[in-house]
Amino acid sequence: MICNDPSTVTHAPDVYAPHVHTLRVYYEDTDAGGIVYYANYLRFIERARTEALRALGIPHAQLVEQFGVMFVVRRVEMDYLRPAKLDDILCVATVAEEIGGASLLLRQTVIVEGGAADKTTLAVARIRLACVSHAEERPKRIPPRWRVALQSLRPPATAAGGIG
Amino acid sequence: MICNDPSTVTHAPDVYAPHVHTLRVYYEDTDAGGIVYYANYLRFIERARTEALRALGIPHAQLVEQFGVMFVVRRVEMDYLRPAKLDDILCVATVAEEIGGASLLLRQTVIVEGGAADKTTLAVARIRLACVSHAEERPKRIPPRWRVALQSLRPPATAAGGIG
Amino acid sequence: MICNDPSTVTHAPDVYAPHVHTLRVYYEDTDAGGIVYYANYLRFIERARTEALRALGIPHAQLVEQFGVMFVVRRVEMDYLRPAKLDDILCVATVAEEIGGASLLLRQTVIVEGGAADKTTLAVARIRLACVSHAEERPKRIPPRWRVALQSLRPPATAAGGIG
Amino acid sequence: MICNDPSTVTHAPDVYAPHVHTLRVYYEDTDAGGIVYYANYLRFIERARTEALRALGIPHAQLVEQFGVMFVVRRVEMDYLRPAKLDDILCVATVAEEIGGASLLLRQTVIVEGGAADKTTLAVARIRLACVSHAEERPKRIPPRWRVALQSLRPPATAAGGIG
Repeated sequence: MICNDPSTVTHAPDVYAPHVHTLRVYYEDTDAGGIVYYANYLRFIERARTEALRALGIPHAQLVEQFGVMFVVRRVEMDYLRPAKLDDILCVATVAEEIGGASLLLRQTVIVEGGAADKTTLAVARIRLACVSHAEERPKRIPPRWRVALQSLRPPATAAGGIG
Repeated sequence: MICNDPSTVTHAPDVYAPHVHTLRVYYEDTDAGGIVYYANYLRFIERARTEALRALGIPHAQLVEQFGVMFVVRRVEMDYLRPAKLDDILCVATVAEEIGGASLLLRQTVIVEGGAADKTTLAVARIRLACVSHAEERPKRIPPRWRVALQSLRPPATAAGGIG
Repeated sequence: MICNDPSTVTHAPDVYAPHVHTLRVYYEDTDAGGIVYYANYLRFIERARTEALRALGIPHAQLVEQFGVMFVVRRVEMDYLRPAKLDDILCVATVAEEIGGASLLLRQTVIVEGGAADKTTLAVARIRLACVSHAEERPKRIPPRWRVALQSLRPPATAAGGIG
Repeated sequence: MICNDPSTVTHAPDVYAPHVHTLRVYYEDTDAGGIVYYANYLRFIERARTEALRALGIPHAQLVEQFGVMFVVRRVEMDYLRPAKLDDILCVATVAEEIGGASLLLRQTVIVEGGAADKTTLAVARIRLACVSHAEERPKRIPPRWRVALQSLRPPATAAGGIG
């Protein structure tokens, strides 16, 4: 159940992303159309963002506790290419496209494991996050430790021309 | 879109309940089985409880602000009789079966509008709520104003033998 | 609980939209941040689209049954301006920005009722829908009756320069 | 992130259950009360049932395809003992209490990892499932292969007096 094994998922560039989160599609995620309900991709990519920060050693809860700031979503762009189905194993690849003073632009790609080579990417999102004070939601600079750690989410050099 | 019109829903006893909340089934509520996902009935009946308190003039938010107490769900029993489907109009009938010092037992019945006379009840729930302090979740007595108002959720005399 | 009453919501242009759907925020919609979870705005605007088609006399279920086609979401752009909170009454204003041969571009604006005049708009979405065959998801022309009816979702002339 | 490690979770009997599914609590699961929304425990235990069948080599999708039958939930009893919170790691232990001709009674216990020894169990559910024909939802006998495999979900002898 690991999507970044190049032998199984060969042609989706973002599968070599700095962070890949794997999840299963359950009944709760689907709708009467027999596919994953469109809002639920936002749940999936938020799980992936949470796990990406945790994997970098900079969990979001710590950001709130230590610095009184947090990331909030300011804008979502999501392209739906092909539907996910019950029991699918999905991978969410997360890449930082821009790391600004008080904001962050992530690209998150949802890939189905085991799909035919030319059908692996199901959805591509761009998410603009702002770093804000916890109390008033005013813009705040991303703390240095977070800024440094987030560099690890930069796309690998070879993927620089990526899906974008 | 009113379920307590006796001409359309004739044989579901709880339709004469003290409070009826009406809602529509949307894609978000369904699953790949083509019916409403079983957990979502708990969302529906919670909406109905919220609206029942609001209709009685004792909104839950006020309970928290003025008394520092709140109702929390301690136990749910739910019988699933027939499935609800996309676009159905559902009514949730709410009846107070017991009003204790620090707890409340509600019966909530989910009825589909326009169903054949013998097929109207889709699900029946019994919900045990506890009144607890907001801070530590310790049992607290239901404030008198709430206790008095909740009497209005008692079942009508003629329905006393109800679904139970 | 009607958002298009100009006396209560004065400065949100889209409140004069051809279709406004009103809803309440319940516990199920919120998250531990105390505000509406970002994915749930997609649930809200999908309810509004469903009700807009129903109000036009062209319900989506009929489109599937009579023509074997359906609308699927191809792209979502959502700007989150201010958070919605528990118990808020929200209005979703729906406007058709483009009605193409086999696609549709909608603008959907989420407005909070009773907010201060300059704080009413919470989120603005642009949704690209494609009309596809139900079986294979291939592009299909929007049936004439739907195309004609959808004209009613065009923005009123005075709002033409709208939020866009 | 394994709950059935006896060194970390010592006093919750069901942690030695035949099947344990582990999951993380994300923002999507919580509500404005700061805890997991009560309906979402039903999502968690359904994931656990799905994974339990898969682990036994009898995935639910296969049951539908090969035998034209499926399991549907007829009744849920859920006791909520303590709340789960954001970032918690939860384990769902699944035990078959009764395996009938055309029905199944499961006990599913939700345990928080790393909780103090006397505070590990958060919720206990009993779920009555019926085996029904896929088309008309009429009761059908559980196919022999499924019946045999389900025996593995029987409680271990030492836990026979369990939580029940």
